[in-house]
Amino acid sequence: MYDGIVQDLIDEFGRLPGIGPKSAQRITFHILQSPSFDVSHLARLLAEVREKVRFCEVCGNVSEQDRCSICRDPRRNETLICVVEDAKDVAAIERTREFRGLYHVLGGAISPIAGVGPDDLRITQLMQRLADGKVQEVILATNPNLEGEATATYLSRLLHTLEIRVTRLASGLPVGGDLEYADEVTLGRAFEGRRTL
Amino acid sequence: MYDGIVQDLIDEFGRLPGIGPKSAQRITFHILQSPSFDVSHLARLLAEVREKVRFCEVCGNVSEQDRCSICRDPRRNETLICVVEDAKDVAAIERTREFRGLYHVLGGAISPIAGVGPDDLRITQLMQRLADGKVQEVILATNPNLEGEATATYLSRLLHTLEIRVTRLASGLPVGGDLEYADEVTLGRAFEGRRTL
Repeated sequence: MYDGIVQDLIDEFGRLPGIGPKSAQRITFHILQSPSFDVSHLARLLAEVREKVRFCEVCGNVSEQDRCSICRDPRRNETLICVVEDAKDVAAIERTREFRGLYHVLGGAISPIAGVGPDDLRITQLMQRLADGKVQEVILATNPNLEGEATATYLSRLLHTLEIRVTRLASGLPVGGDLEYADEVTLGRAFEGRRTL
Repeated sequence: MYDGIVQDLIDEFGRLPGIGPKSAQRITFHILQSPSFDVSHLARLLAEVREKVRFCEVCGNVSEQDRCSICRDPRRNETLICVVEDAKDVAAIERTREFRGLYHVLGGAISPIAGVGPDDLRITQLMQRLADGKVQEVILATNPNLEGEATATYLSRLLHTLEIRVTRLASGLPVGGDLEYADEVTLGRAFEGRRTL
């Protein structure tokens, strides 16, 4: 519909997740028309990110160095490892400021439908980190869905052969939520996990 | 939350229209993790678009040359000009394949609230295009909202001094729509503009 590279840029934005053709067009025109938008800065960042950003060789989190800022931080509790599916989950947990241990990013969850098996995840690397016996607890923080639960079950069986405490994040009602609108499974979990006051 | 340039790229995507912090994070991780996504292609396109794309000196549409592909096309009807607010509107009308005339992009609509007056729009250029008397009809296709209507009214007064037919796109019920769900103003317009069968 547009001449040459304008359409090319719209198509390219349309390939990004969550951006439909209308959004892609809107973004492209913003870039074309907004004098304040620094397009060369974005172009440079894109090139730099792909060039410089790698994954932490210890935990698999995103990092500009061999080891990420969390693994390098001496104040973090090295006896505690929180296992997550994705680096985005690390950021979500860090925002809570509740957890001061280390992370281990699996790079996904076991999913027979998507063809992802245990060998496709960073499980061997996790076992290597646990080999020296320093770690006392592994928190399984995979997503509370089918794939995440399957992965947690698989890992908990594997980890029970070691003498390490294995825990799973609590399931229950979201804080600020409404009991009336909770789904049956979540409400069921909230009952199962009820605590004495 | 992330190390250096990863957060920079998330922030930069977040500055684009319609992209919130979560989408910006999702896009950045897609770029980081998807091996098939050609990031250098996107970076190059961004730089090229800003460098090469300008606005057609005749109609104001986006173009890689001095004159856009529509103004260069000898098969277009030169006696008919469709006035639109934005280059995106040109693309929308082209998709209908109903209109074979030329366009004139105003670059916005009159809006006292946003501080946009007639002098901020490409109205002088429109009058220059009409000066030689070749154009027989001007179709005012500004948006059917307050600013678009004000702009159409302003232009129609200005154009009635010339001997040119001035028309406005029809307002009415959207095709495939439901009478029950139409707003009062649209339904009122549909009555006003009713046609004998």
